[in-house]
Amino acid sequence: MPHTSISRRAALGAAAAAPAALAAPLYAQGVRQMRMVTSWPADLAILSGSAQRTADTIGELSDGRLQVEVFPAGTLMGAFDVHDAVGAGDVEFYHSADYYFQGKHRGFNFFTSVPLGLMMTEIHGWLRFGGGQELWEELSGRYNVRTIACGGTGVQMGGWFNNAIESIDDIADLKMRIPGLGAAVLRELGAETVVTPGGQIVEALFNGDINALEWVGPNDDLAFGFPKLLSTYIFPGFQEPGTVSGLGMNLDMWNGLDARDQAIIQTAADIENSQSCSDYYAGNGKALSQMLMEYGTEPTRIPDDVFDQLADIAYRVRGSVAEEDELGARINESFLNYQRGLMEWNSESFAAYFARRDAAEAVFGSGQDDF
Amino acid sequence: MPHTSISRRAALGAAAAAPAALAAPLYAQGVRQMRMVTSWPADLAILSGSAQRTADTIGELSDGRLQVEVFPAGTLMGAFDVHDAVGAGDVEFYHSADYYFQGKHRGFNFFTSVPLGLMMTEIHGWLRFGGGQELWEELSGRYNVRTIACGGTGVQMGGWFNNAIESIDDIADLKMRIPGLGAAVLRELGAETVVTPGGQIVEALFNGDINALEWVGPNDDLAFGFPKLLSTYIFPGFQEPGTVSGLGMNLDMWNGLDARDQAIIQTAADIENSQSCSDYYAGNGKALSQMLMEYGTEPTRIPDDVFDQLADIAYRVRGSVAEEDELGARINESFLNYQRGLMEWNSESFAAYFARRDAAEAVFGSGQDDF
Repeated sequence: MPHTSISRRAALGAAAAAPAALAAPLYAQGVRQMRMVTSWPADLAILSGSAQRTADTIGELSDGRLQVEVFPAGTLMGAFDVHDAVGAGDVEFYHSADYYFQGKHRGFNFFTSVPLGLMMTEIHGWLRFGGGQELWEELSGRYNVRTIACGGTGVQMGGWFNNAIESIDDIADLKMRIPGLGAAVLRELGAETVVTPGGQIVEALFNGDINALEWVGPNDDLAFGFPKLLSTYIFPGFQEPGTVSGLGMNLDMWNGLDARDQAIIQTAADIENSQSCSDYYAGNGKALSQMLMEYGTEPTRIPDDVFDQLADIAYRVRGSVAEEDELGARINESFLNYQRGLMEWNSESFAAYFARRDAAEAVFGSGQDDF
Repeated sequence: MPHTSISRRAALGAAAAAPAALAAPLYAQGVRQMRMVTSWPADLAILSGSAQRTADTIGELSDGRLQVEVFPAGTLMGAFDVHDAVGAGDVEFYHSADYYFQGKHRGFNFFTSVPLGLMMTEIHGWLRFGGGQELWEELSGRYNVRTIACGGTGVQMGGWFNNAIESIDDIADLKMRIPGLGAAVLRELGAETVVTPGGQIVEALFNGDINALEWVGPNDDLAFGFPKLLSTYIFPGFQEPGTVSGLGMNLDMWNGLDARDQAIIQTAADIENSQSCSDYYAGNGKALSQMLMEYGTEPTRIPDDVFDQLADIAYRVRGSVAEEDELGARINESFLNYQRGLMEWNSESFAAYFARRDAAEAVFGSGQDDF
């Protein structure tokens, strides 16, 4: 299922060739080879594709002056070593999810996704118009990293389980692969949690290290083969409503770039923010249909009372990030205030529309001849 | 309420200056002056800002070779004359909403928004990964125009009324400003409809030409002063779940550009697709709060049975576009199939999450000290 806009990439490729030839003597001196390490296995079409597309766009917009080679997880280093490596200047870029680095500071979660938090469009709004980007730069700057939003997955599913989650007590039996603050919520209920990299989840399942997992949603879950391995697919996910990928850059490298090259990198990331979101949306829709037909997967709605108990803990866990330090307190407060300002709007726009569209489609959607 | 990322624009501006100076002899010969007409009044921050930002980005990414001057509605021509003007080559670009041109072919609606249709992220997915872009090019090509998605408004509100809409019979009393296929739905129920340009809505209301209207949502509605003029604000809007702005280009001009310049224009539009969406999301949330506090606006949920009756007609009206001609049939079928493929995914992701998040926030959201 290649979700790639071939015609545009072909056009960009052709375009990059022509002016570079024209101005070869000028550009030849300035070509800069750079490296991007990711936390994604090479065969995961959208996330790996997102990193590669970003690297390609940087090359194309710079007439080939900035050449970024992409290294999937496990090829140059482990999936979660990328933050240290970029901070140290061993490589220039990472494409990852900043909540993987919450061991350094739990505030990183807010720039990826937090339980009961904002969806992706909302996070973009917070970053751009609500002070989020400045807070992210302040936190990342402590580790000599500068990070910007660069794609993401949209709303995630609750995950895969051996058995249905019928009551809050069922949580205690889980040995679950789940990252971020969602994991902290489950641990409060007695679950064991582990942050297995994407490329090692299937192995962990076979080894019995985990008996439940969440990764992203139908597109990736089908690619990993989860429908063949676990029986229960739960929704909605309380843990990651709008997971944002981060493009991390060595801060010294970033500060050494001229304004044009900084703008080129920002532009490449900006494009990816809408590209990967609709890519996932399309891919998830298609994969879910395939799961239903080929594997008989039955997505199961988590009982409302279980969701609400998770939500209750989630708000407390989120709030506890304020105890990390003064910056943690500011991040938590800024995110929370922004979310609060949007909740009413969301409930009267997206949420209200979706509820009625779904209801009406069931009744009237088949009224068209074409259906 | 300026929703503009000043730091980035300043960086791009600074960046544009430096290399242009370096390569002045080369670029000086190739500078091309172009014009963009819009359907938006100059003082409408996000839509006008979206057009201006697109023009600026085209200039910046081309080192100033492509200079695009923006003309708001009414300065060079009327809001709805832009399609003819671009097709004829009088100007190079328009920034508008293609459903304004449904008088030429009702298929244009599907590239902006249709009742009970896709939201913006979904439409982007259809355009990029579901064959929508090719259909749009085929339709626009008949009028010597090439159009690409370039921003949009997200889910719109149902509009402003003198009285509550309590039953389907209340529709017949309306003289409403509403464009697109939503208008056709209301006309079937006896309403009069008119497509007043944004800049003339208030005047039409004062003149008594209309007694109801829909424009976009809280951000713009507050800017226009609607909360002072009409009492009832209805949601959710059945008519425009994901309104997409179109960047229209004269087809001969487009075909005459080299691949690099085409890629620059496509890139500028791609950025705007995520930028304006989160801009509206943030702006709507803030404006809604202000309406509640300053004007006592009470958003009113349209009764489910009324929404469902509108939905029933909406599906038939949408389907009737297939009768327009063979291309209309293909557009309708493609959109419908894509929507059908996503509905289940949406109801298990966005819709399910929003419903529970809203419910939980009311109960647990105040549990944090910061609230």
